[in-house]
This record gives sequence, C-alpha cells and structure tokens, in this order.
Amino acid sequence: MKHVAPALIAALCMMTISARADEGMWTFDNFPAAAVKQTYGVAIGQPWLDRARGAAVRLSSGCSASIVTRDGLVLTNHHCVRSCAQSLSTPQRDYVKDGFSAATRGEERLCSGMQAEVLDSIADVTARVTAAGSGKDGQDFVKARDAAIAAIEKEHCTGRETQYRCQVISLYQGGQYRLYTYRKYADVRLAFAPELQQAFFGGDPDNFNFPRYDLDFAFVRLYEDGKPVATPAHLNWRSGPPKAGEPVFVVGNPGATQRLLTAAQLETLRDLAIPNTLVLFSELRGRLIRYAEEGPEQARIADHLLFGIENSFKVYSGQQKALVDPALIAAKRQAEAELQAQVKARPELAAQIGDPWGEIAQAQAARRALYMPYSFMELRGGFGSDLFSYARRLVRAAAEREKPDGQRLPEYSDSRLPLVQKQVLDAEPVYPELEKLALSFWLSKLREYLTADDPGTRIFLGKDSPEALAARLAGSRLGDAALRKQLWDGGMAAIRASDDPMIRYVLATDAASRAARNDYENRVTGPTDRAAERIARARFAILGASTYPDATFSLRISYGAVKGWTDHGKTTGPFTTWKGLWERATGQPPYDLAPRWVNARDKVNPGTVFNFVSDNDIIGGNSGSPIIDANGAVIGAVFDGNIQSLGGAFGFDGRVNRAVSVATSAITEALEKVYGNTALTAELKGR
Amino acid sequence: MKHVAPALIAALCMMTISARADEGMWTFDNFPAAAVKQTYGVAIGQPWLDRARGAAVRLSSGCSASIVTRDGLVLTNHHCVRSCAQSLSTPQRDYVKDGFSAATRGEERLCSGMQAEVLDSIADVTARVTAAGSGKDGQDFVKARDAAIAAIEKEHCTGRETQYRCQVISLYQGGQYRLYTYRKYADVRLAFAPELQQAFFGGDPDNFNFPRYDLDFAFVRLYEDGKPVATPAHLNWRSGPPKAGEPVFVVGNPGATQRLLTAAQLETLRDLAIPNTLVLFSELRGRLIRYAEEGPEQARIADHLLFGIENSFKVYSGQQKALVDPALIAAKRQAEAELQAQVKARPELAAQIGDPWGEIAQAQAARRALYMPYSFMELRGGFGSDLFSYARRLVRAAAEREKPDGQRLPEYSDSRLPLVQKQVLDAEPVYPELEKLALSFWLSKLREYLTADDPGTRIFLGKDSPEALAARLAGSRLGDAALRKQLWDGGMAAIRASDDPMIRYVLATDAASRAARNDYENRVTGPTDRAAERIARARFAILGASTYPDATFSLRISYGAVKGWTDHGKTTGPFTTWKGLWERATGQPPYDLAPRWVNARDKVNPGTVFNFVSDNDIIGGNSGSPIIDANGAVIGAVFDGNIQSLGGAFGFDGRVNRAVSVATSAITEALEKVYGNTALTAELKGR
Repeated sequence: MKHVAPALIAALCMMTISARADEGMWTFDNFPAAAVKQTYGVAIGQPWLDRARGAAVRLSSGCSASIVTRDGLVLTNHHCVRSCAQSLSTPQRDYVKDGFSAATRGEERLCSGMQAEVLDSIADVTARVTAAGSGKDGQDFVKARDAAIAAIEKEHCTGRETQYRCQVISLYQGGQYRLYTYRKYADVRLAFAPELQQAFFGGDPDNFNFPRYDLDFAFVRLYEDGKPVATPAHLNWRSGPPKAGEPVFVVGNPGATQRLLTAAQLETLRDLAIPNTLVLFSELRGRLIRYAEEGPEQARIADHLLFGIENSFKVYSGQQKALVDPALIAAKRQAEAELQAQVKARPELAAQIGDPWGEIAQAQAARRALYMPYSFMELRGGFGSDLFSYARRLVRAAAEREKPDGQRLPEYSDSRLPLVQKQVLDAEPVYPELEKLALSFWLSKLREYLTADDPGTRIFLGKDSPEALAARLAGSRLGDAALRKQLWDGGMAAIRASDDPMIRYVLATDAASRAARNDYENRVTGPTDRAAERIARARFAILGASTYPDATFSLRISYGAVKGWTDHGKTTGPFTTWKGLWERATGQPPYDLAPRWVNARDKVNPGTVFNFVSDNDIIGGNSGSPIIDANGAVIGAVFDGNIQSLGGAFGFDGRVNRAVSVATSAITEALEKVYGNTALTAELKGR
Repeated sequence: MKHVAPALIAALCMMTISARADEGMWTFDNFPAAAVKQTYGVAIGQPWLDRARGAAVRLSSGCSASIVTRDGLVLTNHHCVRSCAQSLSTPQRDYVKDGFSAATRGEERLCSGMQAEVLDSIADVTARVTAAGSGKDGQDFVKARDAAIAAIEKEHCTGRETQYRCQVISLYQGGQYRLYTYRKYADVRLAFAPELQQAFFGGDPDNFNFPRYDLDFAFVRLYEDGKPVATPAHLNWRSGPPKAGEPVFVVGNPGATQRLLTAAQLETLRDLAIPNTLVLFSELRGRLIRYAEEGPEQARIADHLLFGIENSFKVYSGQQKALVDPALIAAKRQAEAELQAQVKARPELAAQIGDPWGEIAQAQAARRALYMPYSFMELRGGFGSDLFSYARRLVRAAAEREKPDGQRLPEYSDSRLPLVQKQVLDAEPVYPELEKLALSFWLSKLREYLTADDPGTRIFLGKDSPEALAARLAGSRLGDAALRKQLWDGGMAAIRASDDPMIRYVLATDAASRAARNDYENRVTGPTDRAAERIARARFAILGASTYPDATFSLRISYGAVKGWTDHGKTTGPFTTWKGLWERATGQPPYDLAPRWVNARDKVNPGTVFNFVSDNDIIGGNSGSPIIDANGAVIGAVFDGNIQSLGGAFGFDGRVNRAVSVATSAITEALEKVYGNTALTAELKGR
C-alpha cells in the first residue's frame, strides 16, 4: 500500500475540490453523466439509469446483485450465498463443497434470513431530520434524530409494509438524508452455486489479488406467494467477453468508506480500532483454523465464520497499511486546514459552523476511553454466537415493542422490525461446538481487555471461567425456530418466564450493555455526528454538490473502463483466461480443482475470459454488483478489489485501484460445458 | 499506558542529561553508589557488590537467579523452569500441574539445555572491537566487528572452555564493548517447583497486574562432576518480610530495552514490527488455545509454548500502547534535536560524528522492505518448531565449523559452540502434533506475508500446501538425541548423507534463509549499528559516563525501595498477604487452588507477606533476579512488572513503574507449612 501513497495523497487533497476521473460512488440522483460523456464518449441517459436501478438488488446479507432474466433470476457472488449454502447443508450433503444446482425451480431452496431489495424511489428528507436534532447535544441529539428517521420511515411505508421497505439513508456523514423506498422480496431461493474450490480458487492467499481465477458467481431467484417474481425490468445478459478499454459501470451498494472522516478520527482508527480488530480477528482465526482441522464436519461447520474473519482481516490489514503512512494523515490535515481557511473567510458561514473539527478531536479522547466496554459489551456482544444474537434480539425486540416507536432503539423501530423478525424466525442450523468456541473467545477477551476486576467483567462473567460459562450458555435451546417464534410472539411476559440459559443471561447483562451504548452515544457518537453535520454543511457551501458521499450500503453507480494497471514498473493486464486456471492448479488446496472441473479440461475454450479488472471505484458491499456495458447489458459480477484498492476506504487512486469481476463469458461457458445446465443458459439468453 | 505519558516523556527528555532517581540498569563497574547514599542513606561498598555479583546467576533459558546456600542451591522463578518441568513430565506424571519436589538430592533432575553462568570479571575491549569495524560499511562492518568479537572471546577462554565462557557484551547500542568472563555450570538440576496453579495463580488475566498472589519461585541446583557445587559466596536468606520503604537492589540480567533507539527506529517498531508480532502471536495463540482444549494431554504439551506466546503478547501490547502516544516519539525527537545541537556546537566532534540519525532514518526504508522475508525465512524460521530448530543448528554448525573461526556466523564461533552443542544434544521430548501445528502456522504465514507467487514462497513451500508439508516434516526423527549426536559428530558428510526430511528441507532452503539475512545485515543492521556507534560517541562526549546502557541480557544492578504507587488517584499498597489469596480464589481456573493448598488454609499465617512491589528499574530477563536488602540478604525473587512498567522499554517512570517480587517470607512459610519440606528450609537457614 505504501507505494500508492503519492497518488492517494493527491486524491485526498483534491477531494476538497472535486472528484478525480473515474473516482466516485455516485447516488442515482447525482450521476456525473457529463464527465462520463467527456471521458468515454458515451451518453448515459435517464432510461439507461432507470433500467440499471430497476434491476439492481441489495441483499440483506450485505451484498449486491442484479436481476438478469424476466423470471426473477438474480446474479450475485458465490461468497454472498456461502452462508446460505452452508445452512442448507447437512453432515451428509455439503453444498458449499460440492455446489448446488436446482434441477427444476421446485428444487430451489430458501435462503434463511435473506431479503432482496430493489430501489423504487428517492426523496430528500434532510430538512426534517436535521431540524429534529437542531440545538441538541450528546445522546439527546442521537435520539431526536433517530426518532425523526423512524417517523419518516413509518409514515411512508404504512399500509404497504409487506411489499415495501422505507429507509432513511445518511449521506455525507449526516450532511444529507434521503428516504429510499425499496420494493422488497423476503423469499429468496438458491438456484445455483458452483463448488467452493472453483468459486474461491486460490482461497485466502489469492483473495484481493489479481491475476485471479475465481468463478465467484451464484444465482438466486426472487419469489412471492410461492411463485417466481415476474421481472420484465432486468439486465440483458452479454455472453461475449469484456473488451479492453470499454467503458463499464458498477451498480451496487458499497458498504462503508471513511473518505470524509477527519484526521483525528483516522488517528483513532489507526491507533486503536483497527489494531484491536486485527488482533482479535487473528486469535479467533487461529481458534477456528485449529477447530476446522479436527475433522471434515468441523471444517464444514466453521467454513462461513472463518471465511468472514479472514476476509475482514485482509481488508483491515490493507486499511492499516494505508493509515500508517504518515503522508496520508498529513494530507488529510492539510485539506482540513484549507477548508477551515475558506470557512473563516466567510464570517457568516463561520458563525454557523463553529469548530466541528475541534469537537470531533475532543470526542476522540472519550472514544478511546469508552471503546473497549462499548465494543465488548455492546457492539461485539457474543462475537459470532448465533445463540447470543438470537437472545439479544428477542429480549430487546420484546422490550422495545412496549415503547412508542420514536423512543425505541432505532433498529427496533416499526419500519425495521419486519426484517429483524424474519432474521430471528427463519430456521437455520446452530452448531453448539461453534457456539462454545465463539462464546468462550468473547468472554475471555472481554475479561482480558476490561481486566479481571472491572465491574463489567463481574457482570458478564461473575466468578465463572469463560469456558465453563460458554459451555452452559451453548446449552440454550434457541436454535429451535419454533421456540424463537413462541418467545417473539409471547413478548416480554414469555421472555421473563423463559428458563433458557441464554435468555436468562441476556436479561441479566442487557442493562450493562445498554449503559455502555448510552455512554458511547452520549460522549462519542452524539458529539461526532453533530459536528460532522456542520462539516458537511461547510463543504456544500464551499464546494457545491460536485462531490459524492461516503458509502453507506445504499445504491450507487461508479464508472470506469476495463483496464489493467502498472505498479513499480510491473504491468498487469485486464484479463485472465481459462488457460491460466489450468496452469495455476497444483492439486493441493487451495489450488486444487473440483472433480467435475478436472474432467472438463478438454471441453472448454482455453481462451475464454475468466476474470477481469476495471478502474471502477468500489468497496466491500459491492460484492455481487453487476458490471454493465454502455448498452446496459451485464458483462460480469464484481467480486473483489485488488490489494491496492483496500486503501480506497480513505481515498481512491485510479492509477492502481481495480475492481475484480467474474465475466459472464466464463459463467456462460461453465454452465454450458462444465455443468451442462441448459435450463439456466436458455433462461439467461432469453429463450 | 497513556496516563503515564507525561512522566514518561519527562523521563525521555531528561535522559539526555542524567538518569532520574531510582532509574537505571547499571553495570557493576559503574554503580552509582553516591546517588544511593544520598537517596537512601545506605552505603553500598565493594564487598556488598562483589558478594551480589558472585551470587548472581544468568540462566541460558533467558532468566536470572541467585545462589542462596553453600551447596549450590539457586533461587529463580517457577516460570523460568516451567519448560524444564514440562520436559521432565510424561503423560502419566505432570510436574507442571502437580509441582516437583526432590525428596533427596539424588532425585534432583537435569534441566535439558540449561546452563548457569556467574560473572567472574569485566574488561574493556571497546578499542579493539571498534577499530575492527572502522571505515567499513554494510555487512562488511558487521562481519569485521563480529570477527573481532569472536577472536577476543576465543583468546580469553582458550584452555579453560569447560569451566568458563567468555562473552563480549555490547553496551550503549555499540558505543562500548566489554568482555564478560563467566564461570559456567552446564549441569543444572531441578530441586523444587510448586504447582502451576499457585506459581501462576490468576494466569494470563493477572499477569503484569498487582495486587498479585503468585508463588512464582523454584529452586535448581548447580552440579559439577555429578556433585553439588560448593558455593560459599552465596546470598543469605532472610525469612522475615520486606518492610515498606526499605532500600532494595535487583541484581539480574534485563533482556532488552530500547531507550537509546532513535525516533525513526521507534516508528518502525510502532508501524511494522510490533503490530506484525501482535497479529502473528494472536493467531498462534488461538491455534494453541484450541489445541489445548482438545484434551488434557494436548493441554500439557501446549503449556510452555502457549505461556510464552501469551506473556510476550502482553509485553508487546504494553509497548505498543506506549508507542502510539504521539507525545513519546515527539519527546524523543526533541531530545535528539538537543543532542544534535550540542554536537553541532563542537565542530571537531561534529566532523567525527556526521549524521548518524539521518543514516538510521534511511535504513528504516530498507528495514520495512526487507522485514518480512528476513522475519519469515531467517529470524522466525520454524516459528517454534523444535525439529526445525534442531535441523537448522545441525546443518549450520556443520557448515560453519568447516570455516575459520572469524568467518563464521557469529553464533557458531568457537566461543559459542559449546552452548549450542549442549542445547542441540541434550535429550528433550518432541511432540509431533505440536510440531505440525507450529510448522503449518509458520508456512501459511510465510505464504501470506511474502505472497503466494513470491520466489521465497516457492522455495519454502513449492507446490505443497502448508499443512501437507508440515505433516511430512513432522515425521523427522530428530527428536532422537542419539541421532542428533550422530549428525553433530559426523559433520557435513553425515548431514549430506541423511535422509531425514527436516535435514533435507533445511539443506534445500538454507541458502534462501542466509540470503535474506545477508540482505538485512547489509542494508539494515550494518548501517544502523555503524551509525548507533557514533551516536553513542556523541553522547559520551557530551554527557560523560553518567548514564547507563540499554539492557542486553548482561548483569546489571538497579536500586530502589519497597513502595506502592498512586495512579489516577488510586493508591496501591506495596504488599499482598496470604489472606488476599484465599479471598481471590474462586474455584474456577485460573483462580483455583491446588488441592494441597485448599487443605493448608488453616496452617498458614494469613498475614504473611506474599508478593510485593518496589520501584526498581527492570525488564524481561530480570525474571528470577534476587531482590536484596542493604545488608546483602535476599528478600525475594522478581517475577514480573506491573502493567505500567511495560512502557519501561522506552523510558522509566518512577512514579508508577514497579517490579513485582515473591517474598522469601512466603516461600519459607509455604515450604514449611504447605509442603513440609524441612530439608530445604534447613538448608536455606544455613543449618
């Protein structure tokens, strides 16, 4: 990452003025069509945008996707359905390892907890949200803002909740608010997934690298009333390969960038939050790796959690490499100083704005002091334990539903409850051994970081050892979906009457968790959000609307071209082909081929484009995004960035940051020649 | 650590002038007796110093110790013999868990690989060593210096190698060199060790904390010609408790401090070396914790490695907390600027010195580039695998012995070979499952950090998976001491003829390891050491000999007093008593008591002082050091520092840094009342 610093720094400096070529995760109501026309000579009009938006899907699993046929077939990444495939598997039948292929639509299987959402409309609600928080401080500010958001969401979806979801999206770190209304589909079924070996060929070592040979795609299908949804507004499927230099567009939901954070916030990330995360994830990774080595069933069970930990570890490592380059934060400070000087030169604006940078810097001291209790007691409670997560949501949903909508924790407002309910009640397997592992890890780290004599440790652990308490809690019966339904429906009375050990545990500890959250909101989130709103106001006043907001897992479009890059004098081309896969396969994991693929060697064209890169500006959450050509046809699914792109959290460097996609050319050929799946290929080709 | 910064910073600033009260790890030829007299009113004369030096023991396991009876009995920490106790154990008999007590001297058992050394004399060899490196650069500088050191060591011990060890000690980051001549004892036997539960009560959660209740002591005995060594020059045993405020002296071998490093070096530690170590240790910790959970035998096998990893993790975490405080490095920069200004004011000196700070800063770029290959291929090769370590030392010793003494890798010079030989040939158990775990961890991280396509990865891993290769290498027969002796004696011919998989592997990879080391010495160690020598020269010219050198695991004495501390308004007293242990015991590990202790509750005086703190300046390596009163009697063994002391690597803060010792009062009472060991107590009391 170090070597990209100069350009990254230039990018940061220029962000006070305008986005650079091919930079930006643009909202659909502020697409820079003129810049695209100027750079690539193609005119992207409203019909193109409407079609892309209407086919773009957000998955509640944290991914993006797109509708690619008239019968509700949705293209996404394999790694976006890896958890679903694991949940559908049994010790006897492993759909992650062997892949999943529904022979008929009747064999397509529900992905528990997964909801698909298609953006229907956007409305500006900035004035109402900011007015609610005006003049308030600390947690009062947070509560007033969240209450206004809950009210807006409820008003706009009341009466159509079963088909629509209303969500207020924060943009520009609270500088603007938009109401996004989504058409939602709560019945999403797995149609096709290749073998993990092929979808994730090269495994963790090749993750975030290119050249790459991953068939990281899967198909799910949207259902309603037990039938596939008719989706005339879909993207057309282009089976032909991408062309070097052609303009391409990524439409999806980038999760989070930190490009608008202040230098003080970045320093806290660098010195505290990211290093702590890396160390915690490393130890959990180690425990999971050893657990997975104990046998094939353990490996199967640990798969999804271990993949998530390893993937995140690599992301945070890349971010930290960018942050420890002193030039990055120095450039950020300089950009801040320039903006501050421009504010100062406009006394009326200056009086409105005050010193939000100073306020955020001050809030960092509180953040450092409160980070560990907030992290271990609230934010990361359970640390991957499904049983804890079920129990907390059951207990809190019951408690919050007894309050008026505007006074609840925001994640339990009426507009958000349906998705929580689905995620709590959908049946999914729970693995007691994995629960024990996650819970004893969590409790031992809680004791380590809060210290053994801390009052919080006494509440969460008492005189128990982490291992003994974890074993007792893993005896919870909340893995049974019927019991969860009974507790959900029974509300607080049923919860209080329950003798389930995890329910009892959450009841005994939840006050401490909420107190840690209150402290944090009062002294960190509140002051920070309030100040960030004024920084955003200053930026709009001085820079106008020529910039794009930080990513917030809401629909964006980024433009660019299919192209490789040159770094340290080494040029990497934009494509890989099937031939390269055969050459890279060693027969040893993670470079081994699935049996079906070993046998298919002579059936496929070795020149078919497999994966490719483009300079679209993306980040985690964009996984599964369609990459679309100038005619509006899908030519691939984004599944990764190159290693250089990880610093993109803080600034885009178009010289070396690349999105990595699996080509529709490879998907088509694999379906036809390797899997012999004529039904899917016919559907994709509109026959 | 953050809260101690102001005083720590003050300490750093003042280091350019002189050490602060109670600060310093002084060499025995530069003891600040006048300062001690002034502060504590006690006169420490040469006889006192000679007696302490003559009784002070350095253990090759990385610890300190002291002779406490006329029959060669040596007091050290339990954690310094934990590895020995594990090696002596079997699946049927666990001396770590149950403790070890020799009923007669005949039952005392050899600690494999352990050598005890008592400092006999000190001579200044600075002129000869620095002359050798004069005018040379890069690795030439390193080689010339190391050759001079090897020659000095060989000259002074030739003809008496069986009883003496000659070692050139680097002081002041290469500013001075001393020849330390040690009387050595290669036959060290375990006499007594308590149960781990009591020696390490509170385990990792309480490690580096105080109040504390650890009986972290053990006794070993020095043997020669099969008989206990007569040691008239021993410390007297004081059974009475320490007194608040009394002056005390710690005599031992602090391992390493970084107080004389430049700001640029500290930044590399902060941004690269320590974070990388924390992440690696965390993952290995996780793998070992899960491995240890698989069964009691796995727990027994993993014990020593896991303890070492967790202890080091906590040390490095404390160091990193100190380093991320921006005030620390800022103060270091300021102190550097002041020294530079003083050098500049003396043109003749300035001409001699040049710009060593700039040279060291430049070497940091090379250090960052070469750190990973050097770390994974050379420095941390095998990452805890005993088989790899045996094979590397066998292969290298054979190859190096074919060269003239001055041209060898320094660790294989004639003066150092006897200890290497002992450590390679002493019989110790090897655990194939643990070997597999360590090797597959090492190889997977090597691939992760060098990347899959790196030429180094191809050499160390080829087309194998880390797991498959580790399993093959763990099949090595080098766990057999007889085979090791055969290969050692047979030299390069026997090595080349061996079909042992680990010997073959090291033969195939050692050129790459050596190349990584050469690069690093040429571009990092060489330029850095050469520059550090000139910084030291500047410091001596301006500050005189009023300072103490950084710790280098050589004999030092630090002075101070028995006293608690006040931090954030909270005062911690200097003592814990037996009563506190009973109160802290919960019955759950690591707060459970050994069965013998549960039964002893009514036999001991609850008011007996158990552990205590003092403001002596110590660091890792001081473990086991005697803490001595003004009369020269031993009153305890240092076994830890408080959590605040971890920043002591970079600067001493006498307000809050404390050494933690187990009191002789507790040891005496435990031996008499809990263990009923009348032989040892009689010996200690000189009866």
